[in-house]
Amino acid sequence: MRTIEWDSPSAAVRMIDQRGLPGRFSQVTCFQYHEIITAIQNMTIRGAPAIGVAGAMGIALAAAHHQASTIEELQTVLRKIGEEIAQARPTAVNLRWAVKRIMGVVEQSYPNLPGLREAVISEAQRMADEDVDANRRMAGFGAELLKDGDVIIHHCNTGSLAAVDWGTALGAIRLAHEQGKNLHVLVDETRPRLQGSRLTAWELEQYHIPYEIITDNMAGHFLYTGLANKVMFGADRIAANGDVANKIGTYMLALAANENQKTVLCVAPFSSIDLNTQNGDQIPIEERDPREVLGLSFEGEPVCPADATARNPAFDITPYKLISAIVTDRGVAYPPFENSLSNLSKSL
Amino acid sequence: MRTIEWDSPSAAVRMIDQRGLPGRFSQVTCFQYHEIITAIQNMTIRGAPAIGVAGAMGIALAAAHHQASTIEELQTVLRKIGEEIAQARPTAVNLRWAVKRIMGVVEQSYPNLPGLREAVISEAQRMADEDVDANRRMAGFGAELLKDGDVIIHHCNTGSLAAVDWGTALGAIRLAHEQGKNLHVLVDETRPRLQGSRLTAWELEQYHIPYEIITDNMAGHFLYTGLANKVMFGADRIAANGDVANKIGTYMLALAANENQKTVLCVAPFSSIDLNTQNGDQIPIEERDPREVLGLSFEGEPVCPADATARNPAFDITPYKLISAIVTDRGVAYPPFENSLSNLSKSL
Repeated sequence: MRTIEWDSPSAAVRMIDQRGLPGRFSQVTCFQYHEIITAIQNMTIRGAPAIGVAGAMGIALAAAHHQASTIEELQTVLRKIGEEIAQARPTAVNLRWAVKRIMGVVEQSYPNLPGLREAVISEAQRMADEDVDANRRMAGFGAELLKDGDVIIHHCNTGSLAAVDWGTALGAIRLAHEQGKNLHVLVDETRPRLQGSRLTAWELEQYHIPYEIITDNMAGHFLYTGLANKVMFGADRIAANGDVANKIGTYMLALAANENQKTVLCVAPFSSIDLNTQNGDQIPIEERDPREVLGLSFEGEPVCPADATARNPAFDITPYKLISAIVTDRGVAYPPFENSLSNLSKSL
Repeated sequence: MRTIEWDSPSAAVRMIDQRGLPGRFSQVTCFQYHEIITAIQNMTIRGAPAIGVAGAMGIALAAAHHQASTIEELQTVLRKIGEEIAQARPTAVNLRWAVKRIMGVVEQSYPNLPGLREAVISEAQRMADEDVDANRRMAGFGAELLKDGDVIIHHCNTGSLAAVDWGTALGAIRLAHEQGKNLHVLVDETRPRLQGSRLTAWELEQYHIPYEIITDNMAGHFLYTGLANKVMFGADRIAANGDVANKIGTYMLALAANENQKTVLCVAPFSSIDLNTQNGDQIPIEERDPREVLGLSFEGEPVCPADATARNPAFDITPYKLISAIVTDRGVAYPPFENSLSNLSKSL
C-alpha cells in the first residue's frame, strides 16, 4: 500500500494518517487542495519525498474540482494555489520542486479545459510513480554501502511512509536485508514527534529487521563505545556544498559519528538537492508549535510544569564536512560535494 | 525543604518522591534500609549527591533499628548492609564514597551499643549538612563563571532535588540569578526519565529564572546558530584524567558545544571525583529497564510497537578534552585536569 495515492474514480487523494501509528492504522481522503495543505502542516503526511508528491496532488485536486469556465481562469487559480501549497512547510525543498514541476504542465497550451485537467492529474500520478522508481534506485546504491554485521543508528523515519513507497535510507537498509546481509538498527526515537519509535520501528517489524529503540541522546554512547558503526538519515534539503537540512537531531548524530570515525550516510532523491542554495545557512528552519515538545506523558504523569514553554525547531543543518557520502537516485556523491553533486546534476 | 532528611523523633528518613513531579508533590518515609535501596533504584531519589546521602542514611536506619545485642554483631550487620547499599546503583561514585565514610564511623570503638547507633546517625546527619555547605561553595565558584546575558543549555536535573539542597550546576545558575545576572536556560528535557522537563523546569519556575524546554537533540542547533553560549551539567563520577560520567546525553551535548567553541562547565562536589579511576573507560555504565524508554505516550497514543525493545544506558562518558572547567566545592579545575584535580585533592 502506498503512503499517498490518487483515487481516479472519485478524483480524490488517499493517504495513510501517520499521526496514529503504530497504535492505529487509518487512511484519510482529501477532495480539496486545502485539505492537503492541512495534512502536510499537521503531519498526517510527512517525509520530504512524500510531501512533494502530496503538493503535486493538491494541485491535481484543484485542477479536477475547480469550477473554472476557461483555461486561463483555471491556470490563474492553479498558480495561486501552487504558491500557497509551496509555502505549506518551508524547509523541505521537494515541495517547491514538485509544485514547480507540475506548474510547468499547467502553463502549457491545451485545446480545452478537460485537456488541462487531465494533463495535471496525469503528471501528479507520474510523479508518484517516479518517486517509487527513484527510491528503488537509491536503495540499490545505498545497499551496496552496507555490510554484513553493520549496526546502524537511524534517525527519524525514512521508510515507505516518508515517500510514496520504499523510502530513502530505510529503503537501502531494507534492500540490504533482503540481499541477506545481517543488519541491526538502533532506532533513534526522534523527539519531539517520535517518527523513529512510532514509524521506523513499525516498518522494521514488518520487514523482520532486528532493531532496538534508543533515545536520541544515547547515540553518542553507542558510537563512542563502538557498538554502532554507521549512521543513516534522509534529507529535507541539501545545499550545493553538501550541507544537509534534516530532522532536528541529525547534526548531533552526525557529529558524534564523525568524532568516532564512523560512516555518515545521507540518502535522498535528487529532488531534495537545491543547487540554488549555496550552503545550509541559507535554508529556512521551520519552528513548530511548542505543544509538540510539551504534550508527552510518562506513565500517566505530565512531563513538565503546566505553564512551561518550549522551543521547537523542526530541522537542523549538518555541515558537509561531517558527511561521508550522499546517496541519490542518480548515484553516490562523495566529498568534495560541490563537485560531485554538480556532476550528478548533469548526469540525466 | 530538603530533598532528604533525618526525622529524629521516629528515627526515619523522609524524602521527596521525585517520580511524581511536577504533577504531584509528595514525600515518602523510610524506616528500613532496604526501602532506601529501593528508593535509590527506582529513582524516588536521584542525583549523585542526593543518593550519596541517602546511602549514608540507609546505614543510619539499620543502626537505629537493628536488634543486635552486641556492638560486634551490629558492626557485622552494618558491614553487610553497607556493601549492599554501595551496589544499589553502579555509576555514581558518591554512593560508594558515602558508604565508605560512614563505615569509618561504624568501625570505631564504642563503650556501648547506643554509642555506636548515635555516632552513625550523627554522621549521616552531618553528611547531609555538609552536602548543603559544599553545594553553596560550588554555587559561589560556579556563579563567578556566569555572565550577564548567558544562554545556558542545562542537562538533566542538578538542582536542589539532585542534592540535599541547593544543587550543583543549577545551584550556580540560581546564585548568579540572585546576584542580578540575566540568564536564560534552555532545559534539555533529558530522555528517558525527563529530569529536565520534569524537575529542572519545576525548580526554575520557583526561582523565577526564565527558561524554555528543548528536546535533547535540539541542543546542537542552538549551539550551531549561536543562541546558546554555555552548557552546564553535573557528574556521577569524574575520573582522575577529567573524563566525566554523567546522565546519558551529556557526551553529545558537550561535543556540540565544543565543536562550536562554547563553554562546557561540569559542576560537582569533590565526592564525585574518583582519583582511583584513571579514565572514563573504567567507569561502569548502568543499563536500566527498557520500559523507561518505551513507556511514553504522546497525545494519548503509544509511541512504539507493542513488542518493541529498547536499550537504556543511563549514563555516558564525556572525554576530558571536551570540558572547559570542572567546578567543585574546593575550587575550579581547568585543563590539564590530571594536575588540577590532583592539586584540589590536596587542598583540604
